[in-house]
Formats: sequence, C-alpha cells, structure tokens
Amino acid sequence: MSAEHATPPEKASPVKKTYTRPLDIRHGRIDMGHGAGGKAAAQLIEELFLPALDNAYLRQGDDGAALPLPPQAASPGQLVMATDGHVISPIFFPGGDLGCLAVHGTVNDVAMMGAQPLYLSASFIIEEGYPLADLQRIVDSMGAAAREAGVPVVTGDTKVVERGKGDGVFISTTGVGWRPPGVSVSGRHARPGDVILLSGTIGDHGVAVLSQRESLAFETTIQSDTAALHTVVADLMAAVPGSVRVLRDPTRGGLATTLNEIARQSGVGMRLQEAAIPVKPQVDAACELLGLDPLYVANEGKLIAIVAPEAADAALAALRAHRLGADAARIGEVTADPHHFVQMDTRFGGRRVVDWLSGEQLPRIC
Amino acid sequence: MSAEHATPPEKASPVKKTYTRPLDIRHGRIDMGHGAGGKAAAQLIEELFLPALDNAYLRQGDDGAALPLPPQAASPGQLVMATDGHVISPIFFPGGDLGCLAVHGTVNDVAMMGAQPLYLSASFIIEEGYPLADLQRIVDSMGAAAREAGVPVVTGDTKVVERGKGDGVFISTTGVGWRPPGVSVSGRHARPGDVILLSGTIGDHGVAVLSQRESLAFETTIQSDTAALHTVVADLMAAVPGSVRVLRDPTRGGLATTLNEIARQSGVGMRLQEAAIPVKPQVDAACELLGLDPLYVANEGKLIAIVAPEAADAALAALRAHRLGADAARIGEVTADPHHFVQMDTRFGGRRVVDWLSGEQLPRIC
Repeated sequence: MSAEHATPPEKASPVKKTYTRPLDIRHGRIDMGHGAGGKAAAQLIEELFLPALDNAYLRQGDDGAALPLPPQAASPGQLVMATDGHVISPIFFPGGDLGCLAVHGTVNDVAMMGAQPLYLSASFIIEEGYPLADLQRIVDSMGAAAREAGVPVVTGDTKVVERGKGDGVFISTTGVGWRPPGVSVSGRHARPGDVILLSGTIGDHGVAVLSQRESLAFETTIQSDTAALHTVVADLMAAVPGSVRVLRDPTRGGLATTLNEIARQSGVGMRLQEAAIPVKPQVDAACELLGLDPLYVANEGKLIAIVAPEAADAALAALRAHRLGADAARIGEVTADPHHFVQMDTRFGGRRVVDWLSGEQLPRIC
Repeated sequence: MSAEHATPPEKASPVKKTYTRPLDIRHGRIDMGHGAGGKAAAQLIEELFLPALDNAYLRQGDDGAALPLPPQAASPGQLVMATDGHVISPIFFPGGDLGCLAVHGTVNDVAMMGAQPLYLSASFIIEEGYPLADLQRIVDSMGAAAREAGVPVVTGDTKVVERGKGDGVFISTTGVGWRPPGVSVSGRHARPGDVILLSGTIGDHGVAVLSQRESLAFETTIQSDTAALHTVVADLMAAVPGSVRVLRDPTRGGLATTLNEIARQSGVGMRLQEAAIPVKPQVDAACELLGLDPLYVANEGKLIAIVAPEAADAALAALRAHRLGADAARIGEVTADPHHFVQMDTRFGGRRVVDWLSGEQLPRIC
C-alpha cells in the first residue's frame, strides 16, 4: 500500500561498519550492550532488525522516518515519525522523571528530523503492584511536559505484567510531526568543511541519574538537562534556512557515539577540539570519580547541529539566543576521511580517535 | 502548537461510568485487572490518565485518535494515530506470535478509525539473556506481517533491561494512517435502530494462547485468529459508504466488554441474540472446560461493525465476501436505553444483561 505512494527516499550511505564478528544468531543472547546505543546495538539493528523489517524508510537510519503522505492527502510536505522506549532506572531523578523524559525524548527525535512535532502516543507497560501515587506523579509530569511543549498525548495504551516481569513502569512514546517541503535534515547530509555545533554542556543527564542509583551513593546537585528542543530547532532553522545539514540529540552513547553514527551515515570524518566542548565542572568531577568519560554520557536536552560553514556564526548566535542553547559552542569540523574517524585535538596538544561506545557503559539511562 | 490548528473534535459522551469507589491513588497499587481491558482499566484511564494528559483528541475515547494536519500541509483529510503495547505470554502460540500480533493489533486499531493504515513504528523492550534466535523469529514474523499488510515498520527503538526486570520481549507498535474527509467512524456514533454485525467467530485467540500456557496442559488444535483487518474495512466502507457508524475490534475483554464500551460512548443500549453469535464448537468446549465465557475472551482478527439499518444486508454481504469475514453474522441491534445496558436474548429463551469485564480474566493475552 505505502509502496504505491512512496517517493523513493534518498539512498542510505553504502558504508557498512565492520564488526569483529557477525552476530551469533543461533546461540547468542541479548546482553545489556545491545541496548546501550553503541556498537553492539548498531550491529543488532543491522544484522537482525533491518533485514527482517527491510524498507526504504527504515534504511534512512535516522532517529525517525520521513514519510510521504498518500496522494489523496494532496499535501506537499512529509510526515515524520519517531519512537522511543523509556526504561530509565530510577524512575525519578534530579531534574526530571520517566514521564517528562518520555515526552522530551520523542519530541526531540521528531524535531531532529527538521519537523514540527504535532502529536504523541504513549504505551505504558506497568508492573503489578506499582503504587498508583507514583504512576500519578509520572503521568502528571508527562502531561505537564506535553502541555509545555504544545505536543499533546493523543492516544495511549496500558498493559500490566506480573510482579517480577517488569520494573515499575516502561513508557514507549511515538511522535508524529510535519515537515514542510524542501527541508531535508538527515544524518546522511554532513559534508567536509561543515561546522559542528553543540547546544550546551554534556553529561548532565547521565550523571544526574547515576547519582540516584543506590549502588552509587554519590552526592551531587547535578540536574538532568531533560528538555524539549523543538523550539531551539525552529529558531535555528529560521536563522539559517537551508544551511542546517544534520540535527541529532546525543542521548544513549553520548556525544562520541552520536558523532560516530553521523560520520558513518554521511561517509565523512570529523575533527573535534576537546577544549571547545562544554562540560560543567561538577559533571567533570563526577565523571572522574566514577571512571566515566563525559563524551559517552547521555544527554536529554542537547543537540548537535552540523551546518554549512558560511552559516556557522549565525547558527551559533541563534542557538545562544535561546534559553536552552545559552552554552552553545562550535566544537569541530567535518573532514574528508575514508575511514570515517572522529578525531579530537586534546587539551594537551595531542590528538586521539574518539571511537563509539562498544558495549554497555550506563544501562537504562533513558 | 497543535491547539492553533485544532478543529475541535466532536464532544465526548457526557456519560460517566459509575464505579463502586474511586481509585485510591494515595495507597492503591496496580493490579493485573488494570491491564485487562475491563472496568478496572477504564477506571484507571478515566481517573488517572485522562485528567493528567487531558486534551480533546484523547477524550475521543476510541482506540486511536483522529488528528488534523497543520494548515501548511494543505490536506483535506485527517491523520489517525493508534498505539498498542504487546506483552503476550507465551510469545509463540498456535497461529501466531508476538511479532505478527504487534503488527496486526495496531494496523487494526488504525483501520477501526476508518483510516488507511500507512506506517508503523516499533519499540522493543528486551530482557537481558533473551535468545537471539527467538528474537529473530519474532522480528521475521513482524516483517512478514507488515509486508503482507502493506504497512511497513518505518522506525524503531530497542531497549534492554536486566534479567528479571522484563519478560522476554515486549513490543509497543504505533500506527499512522490517513482518513479521507467526510469519513467519521467512532465508538460515539451508534444510534438506536442500528444493526450490529460481527465479522466471524469469537474466542479463538484467547483459547489458542491459553492452550499454550504450561499451567493449562490443555490439548487443542484451535489457532489464534490474528490477522490484519484493514482490507475488510476497506471493502465494507466501499460497499456501504456513509453507513458505517462504528468499527471496533473486540480484543482484550472480548465482545462483551467492547460492546459495553461502545454503548457507553454512544449513550445507547444494545440487544444481542446469543444464538446468532458465531463460536467454534472446539472453542465453546474449551471455554466450558476452563470456566470461561467466550463473550469475554480476546480476539485478534475480528471486528464489530455497527451500521445503519438500511445498509445492514449489503454490509453483511460485503463482510462475507472477504476471506476474513466468511463467518460474519448479524448479532443484534442498538436500542435506546438510558442505562446503556447490553442485553442478550439467550439460547434458552431468557434475557440477561451482559456486563463488561470487571477485573482480570485472562492476563497478558495480547
């Protein structure tokens, strides 16, 4: 059916990541790394999900899909659809909770496609015995976040699983947006010479969540950055129309993994300046203590924008003019590199390859 | 944002179901009944979810939401969006599995809004240690079902939770469809005098799944009826354009609960003829043995169509002409009833009230 009205999406990058060995589908088992957003997750998607569900939209490889409306709809634009499962633990953390996170995460995935988020759906999977008062808190937070973003939750579903077969509450949200004709933002569009902008400090979300985990009785005042970024995107796209090539929010796997994904999708390299990447001192200190690299820690209210070089200054100014982009910075450039390496000039004058997350660093961070 | 382009949806029925007592949000806990699709689930939605997430689309109270496109989209029709979490246990059952069920369930929810299903998203929540071979089987089945339905899975997400914090695989699918202008099918549109049609036998899915549960070593050859019904809907709507008032698939809670929901949404009563409701003899026998009433057992490939009386014969003929509607039957009529009772003339010449499911009958059946 959809094939009839499909305009063929742009071709996905032919670059295939090479993995040490193929998935052992016959004897293998899911491990936490398959959910961590790094190399193992990418391999699972490439070798198991993509072949089974194969279609041109899925192969776009972005965090959502850009979709033609059927001819009868007589609309010039595209639908954008994105989905995200939220299994964060603990459910309540400094600066947010599962409810607002489930709204922000999916609003952001739609916005990163260059679309205006319009509607959300929510599927709740709740463990038997979960306190109604906590569920109320989660759903209230979800409602408040949806109202603040102006993107209503228009339909939902609730399932209950037996005690010990779930973990409190899981929420899968799906967002639908509309993208005007002519807008084409994708992880496939970075070109050598483009400038890489980051909308603010990294690592806040992951460190805030970790600080709440019982096993790490780590005292901190660090708050999650969880926020809906669609108005930042709207301001940015209005400031430099036609010059935004890639938008992506560096969630699971952090900045390092997200940039590697883009490098691979676009078939380019990247060169970062470590000193230019904003990190809050408390986050830096916490990462030091916990043995984490902030480059790999999840964010929930930050975006990467890759823009044409001539638009970089205006784009950075537009980001900084927004409340959620006050700490925006220019962190590097896109390079021509057949190996698609992300390299970084370190604070100490050296240079190193920033690989993507290979397994699990922080499970259940979003 | 969406408020700006919202055309106000029709008013929801002012009828409120009265519950024995309000939810005890302060001290209460989720029980399996809250996920069973019956009275407890309805109360949870009404007293907890709806107030928190309140908006006019959600209040439509159907299994999906009909949504205007933004004015820039310049389209005369509506989007339809529906979501469903799938937590069925066991994951593989006679006639299907979690993968195809997750496609069929959501394609059907979109179709029951009178829309053409276009795209699906899928959010996977997988338990650590789950065999890749089983995941492959599920995803292959999902791909096959999506291809057969012509509704591709265009975007997805995968999360992994620790062993003992999930139960194999949960899949939440969301469907988006397009509904041409002028089509208005909703659980709110039944009118006294309308005719109630059912597309085939009831109880097959629930009994097939139960037969696989270890605790019930019940031998049966009954297969789940899981199937995508959108082509049945298309044929029906083409046969009697403008005369289809309500479409609904009687899944969780079965035929009885679904008809009660419609009666309540439309503010009407119903009168059924028990002898007219098709039930396979093996399903009847299995239900007898298990102490179940087929009226409350879930279906995954059947639909209820409530149609204008003058269109009933043509509508029934259209259903029967479709492979998935061969056993379609006229099972009753809509009545004027201020109490919104669903009543049934029994096989033995009596009459009884068919109430909706009040708690849990069969957990995790979809």
